[in-house]
Amino acid sequence: MSNLETKHLTKKFGNQVVLDDLNLNLKPNTIYALLGRNGAGKSTLLSILANHIFASSGSVVWQDKELTGRDHPVQEFYLMSEHNLFNKSDSLKNIIKKTTLLQGTFDQTLADEMLLAFKLDPKKKVSQLSTGYRTIFKTIVALSVPAEYVFLDEPILGLDANHRVMLYRYILKAYENRARTIVLSTHLVEEIANLVAHILILKDVKIIVDSDVEDLLAKSYQISGPKEEVQLYCQGLQILDDEQIGTLYTCYIYADLPANRIIPDSIVIKHSDLQDSFIKLTEEERELNV
Amino acid sequence: MSNLETKHLTKKFGNQVVLDDLNLNLKPNTIYALLGRNGAGKSTLLSILANHIFASSGSVVWQDKELTGRDHPVQEFYLMSEHNLFNKSDSLKNIIKKTTLLQGTFDQTLADEMLLAFKLDPKKKVSQLSTGYRTIFKTIVALSVPAEYVFLDEPILGLDANHRVMLYRYILKAYENRARTIVLSTHLVEEIANLVAHILILKDVKIIVDSDVEDLLAKSYQISGPKEEVQLYCQGLQILDDEQIGTLYTCYIYADLPANRIIPDSIVIKHSDLQDSFIKLTEEERELNV
Repeated sequence: MSNLETKHLTKKFGNQVVLDDLNLNLKPNTIYALLGRNGAGKSTLLSILANHIFASSGSVVWQDKELTGRDHPVQEFYLMSEHNLFNKSDSLKNIIKKTTLLQGTFDQTLADEMLLAFKLDPKKKVSQLSTGYRTIFKTIVALSVPAEYVFLDEPILGLDANHRVMLYRYILKAYENRARTIVLSTHLVEEIANLVAHILILKDVKIIVDSDVEDLLAKSYQISGPKEEVQLYCQGLQILDDEQIGTLYTCYIYADLPANRIIPDSIVIKHSDLQDSFIKLTEEERELNV
Repeated sequence: MSNLETKHLTKKFGNQVVLDDLNLNLKPNTIYALLGRNGAGKSTLLSILANHIFASSGSVVWQDKELTGRDHPVQEFYLMSEHNLFNKSDSLKNIIKKTTLLQGTFDQTLADEMLLAFKLDPKKKVSQLSTGYRTIFKTIVALSVPAEYVFLDEPILGLDANHRVMLYRYILKAYENRARTIVLSTHLVEEIANLVAHILILKDVKIIVDSDVEDLLAKSYQISGPKEEVQLYCQGLQILDDEQIGTLYTCYIYADLPANRIIPDSIVIKHSDLQDSFIKLTEEERELNV
């Protein structure tokens, strides 16, 4: 078992830097969420990790080897992405057959169970599927290949609420049947809080959070009360945002609470949930003044 | 001002009926949500209303005329859909120029304001945009054309939480600047409860709900208590689902509460929110037994 690492990974499109000096260390057999605002570079990062596109500088390292286009162990890495690499006039059955040829063995039992559960007829063509069903089919394929690292780029894009719940359960089931590393990107942050073990957040071309879910939530606080007392208590802590509603002032912080600081009776401290923490961590100033 | 109506509208793909005998009446200057599970036929319906594809039988009527391919008043109807009809190597600026030629005048003020708010550079090419940003751009174009009927097929597909909030506000702003009918489909049901006036729900090739939001919510109840008493109270009402958790039995109903029936002290009645009502209205049996 070997970690998948990036070393000083940088990606430019023309003059624009989209990923800057990323040093990541993805453990084997772990479910990760890759979060970030629209355009933060999530898809670009996953495409580089899966060797679909190349970094501008830096490297991706696995089993002490630099992974490059030529020597890439294709069967160990699989990317499910928005860009549909399937032939649209192909039947689902045929795509599974072709994928098996390329990726090695295929978990036909899981695929069949999922096709049935989602009422997907394998005789259908990709072109006959709706947006949501295309996503579902691509995810079924991604969970059924024998790869050690599976990258799911928005596996719930266009899925209705019931199908989202089903898909989360199948991701867990696939993982329990055979442990592997799964990195999934999504915009429905709260829904994956119980699914993933570790969170990566991309913002402004950098990784700003690389943390276990528990640690991230443990450090996410909302501190409310009279402004002066809240500000005094929060001095020196990482403040993500603050707001004043009437007489109530609230600071959103991402930090361990100082053990030696007394909490005055007038202030109330509570944990933020994952979605709130994410929004505060990634918000741009004055964005919502429509 | 004229309503847009469908009369006995039916659509088949091969032998498969995807829409069956729909009789809709879309009022001018009203914001609608079109809801339904994955594969329910939402995109097909919007494509027919916008004259991108044809019905198998039945008709679409506007201003006392049957709308057909030849005589279709293109500038009065606009569909923003998953299928990107733009040339991917075109710049956003160029696409706006071409759209203006086809659709007539263009609300350049709104488009500029939205491009700026979402930090979209009009010199960029469509191919350079991420999934979420493509959706945003397509919606900007759809809100800026002078059409009387604008169909937005999943205008928040791939959008992060902050961008979703911004987009809802711009949809309202566009509507307030110039009233028109907007029909939007989405899977994030709860988020649009305050945005739309009227709800259409497609299920099993039929429209099962065609109702003002207020009326729909007013008829959506969860009735909990001891099983026998709940069942007695709910007799004859439209029951969507029921569940037993420990000794607590809950019935989900979609009906007016009978005025002449006494509510026993042992049962509790509360309203469902829009997302819960939707899930209960469209759920398939035993779907979640993963």
